[in-house]
Amino acid sequence: MSKFSNQRIKKVTAYTPGEQPKDRRYVKLNTNESPFAPSPYALRLARLAAADLKLYSDPECRELTAAAAEAFGIEKDEIIFTNGSDEALNFAFAAFCDENNGAAFPDITYGFYKVFADLYGVPTVEIPLKDDFSVDVNDYIGVYKTVFIANPNAPTGKALSVGEIEKTVKGNPENVVVIDEAYVDFGAQTALPLIKKYDNLLIVRTFSKSRSLAGGRLGFAIGNKELIADLNRVKYSTNPYNVNRMSQAAGLGALCDSEYFDYCREKIINNRNYLSMQLKSRGFEAVDSLANFIFAKKAGVAGKEIYLKLKEKGVLVRHFDTPRLTDYVRITVGSKEELDFLLEALEEIL
Amino acid sequence: MSKFSNQRIKKVTAYTPGEQPKDRRYVKLNTNESPFAPSPYALRLARLAAADLKLYSDPECRELTAAAAEAFGIEKDEIIFTNGSDEALNFAFAAFCDENNGAAFPDITYGFYKVFADLYGVPTVEIPLKDDFSVDVNDYIGVYKTVFIANPNAPTGKALSVGEIEKTVKGNPENVVVIDEAYVDFGAQTALPLIKKYDNLLIVRTFSKSRSLAGGRLGFAIGNKELIADLNRVKYSTNPYNVNRMSQAAGLGALCDSEYFDYCREKIINNRNYLSMQLKSRGFEAVDSLANFIFAKKAGVAGKEIYLKLKEKGVLVRHFDTPRLTDYVRITVGSKEELDFLLEALEEIL
Repeated sequence: MSKFSNQRIKKVTAYTPGEQPKDRRYVKLNTNESPFAPSPYALRLARLAAADLKLYSDPECRELTAAAAEAFGIEKDEIIFTNGSDEALNFAFAAFCDENNGAAFPDITYGFYKVFADLYGVPTVEIPLKDDFSVDVNDYIGVYKTVFIANPNAPTGKALSVGEIEKTVKGNPENVVVIDEAYVDFGAQTALPLIKKYDNLLIVRTFSKSRSLAGGRLGFAIGNKELIADLNRVKYSTNPYNVNRMSQAAGLGALCDSEYFDYCREKIINNRNYLSMQLKSRGFEAVDSLANFIFAKKAGVAGKEIYLKLKEKGVLVRHFDTPRLTDYVRITVGSKEELDFLLEALEEIL
Repeated sequence: MSKFSNQRIKKVTAYTPGEQPKDRRYVKLNTNESPFAPSPYALRLARLAAADLKLYSDPECRELTAAAAEAFGIEKDEIIFTNGSDEALNFAFAAFCDENNGAAFPDITYGFYKVFADLYGVPTVEIPLKDDFSVDVNDYIGVYKTVFIANPNAPTGKALSVGEIEKTVKGNPENVVVIDEAYVDFGAQTALPLIKKYDNLLIVRTFSKSRSLAGGRLGFAIGNKELIADLNRVKYSTNPYNVNRMSQAAGLGALCDSEYFDYCREKIINNRNYLSMQLKSRGFEAVDSLANFIFAKKAGVAGKEIYLKLKEKGVLVRHFDTPRLTDYVRITVGSKEELDFLLEALEEIL
């Protein structure tokens, strides 16, 4: 840190993204990317858009917004597109939280919530998950803080029902409830239908997982138009042209190709079931996941050991070195071939 | 604004980007884009990169960083890439300025500096330009605030010498001096050689202008490695994967194709001289510009009138409705054909 840095950055501990080593080829099951290429239509539109790169991208993302409004059955002013869903979360923290307006989220969840909170000097309450890693929504009623819940949760993959989400939203009428649905397309219930009914529900989504566009950096948030206007205030005060032309085009293509979208998520759900069964048959305990990853442990073997030995064998999974998670590894649901490679490596190790 | 919004966003007045109307085709000379397509090599690499979009982009931008380090004669830890240079400026405000650490910049300059300052609650000093729109660096010595100077300045196009920049940097050893070199490639002197000598100089650049990649959203900052580490703390606390795969690839191609880069900027410099002469021969007063735009006025005709009448004729230029600027329009240096279209329209109007 330089001597010029302010208190804000002196006290924050930055997020550590999953490793992206380039020393060798890996079967990469550590950052929950899709094993499938993006929709061919998305790729075609992205490549076409390159021709116009000399011109700024549309700050209002008008084409993308119109397509999304139709796809999700919402109004155009109920959605904002962002440079990945991390930016949507960042905007939410910047708009709704500060020293006097705290944030509440589970003790085990997407690690970035705590980072945003620290950056903005936001007091936080981390509410422990139950022993089975489930969220008890009763713990989130009347917390008088902005609530952040990933549904399904990461790194567990466990999901709440839309009824449980509604209870949380209803139970915090004076605060925004942010439901991070990064992984919702793999079988969990979306809270989307609730946005017409509640002015304090914000849903955050991404094109990185179910739409295979992690490298395109495209996310969005959906909610009451006044909430979206708040996020737009942050966007137009930091980076109005936040989504580049090629990613806007890729997103449009991905949204329109619903057949391919359905094909990919069905495959991933099938592969998840396969992976879960195979792990269990090898003595693993696997959390029931509705996401594109499985959180699993094996009695008598440390999570870190599994992670390190798999890495030696050319398979990357993710290990979190914190007390309640240290026994586990989080494995992304890859292609059938990738999963078989992983399972073979596991057999050699154990 | 919703009832959930915090003080931070309640008090900020967001930035207004140049208009991007879609009602008809315009000769677009309002947002300082390049009239030339990006380097063909940049486009090829961007399109190739689309194939890997299912995977996250490299948060460290390693290939791009290595190429830039070589191109600019710096170390890899002396540069950070951002989602457009607005993001680099945002990171600088977030890292170095707060309620207790103010910012100083000219009263007439890139309008976004004031927006960032308001968002972060940063006290500002706006130092008036001289009557001829020049910056007097003596006004910036020992201001005990983070200094932001666009060089060349916008919307005037006037530039400081590297000696004047050095005086400013030397005169504020306790604060960072940010030189925004968005337009430096069109004939002004860069302060790059000074970064080895001073630990408080940060240079911000963009691929949007001289490298024809406005729609790709790629910017960067160069400075002492500790300053860059500070900006990285902000990046890794808000959006680690801030630059998508296609833009990283396009940037790499643009950096490597120095022949095309030189060809484009030479053309733009020639066109600027042509536009300046033609405007003057039509009774305009034009500020001497080292940027890819010209700030000009005509006695007896309001800037707004010129702007509106040109818009009617299908030519977009930019007008700023503030006291010292209201007589002027800012005209982007387009292609020869675009400039002739503009000049004909001007003749019909006046």
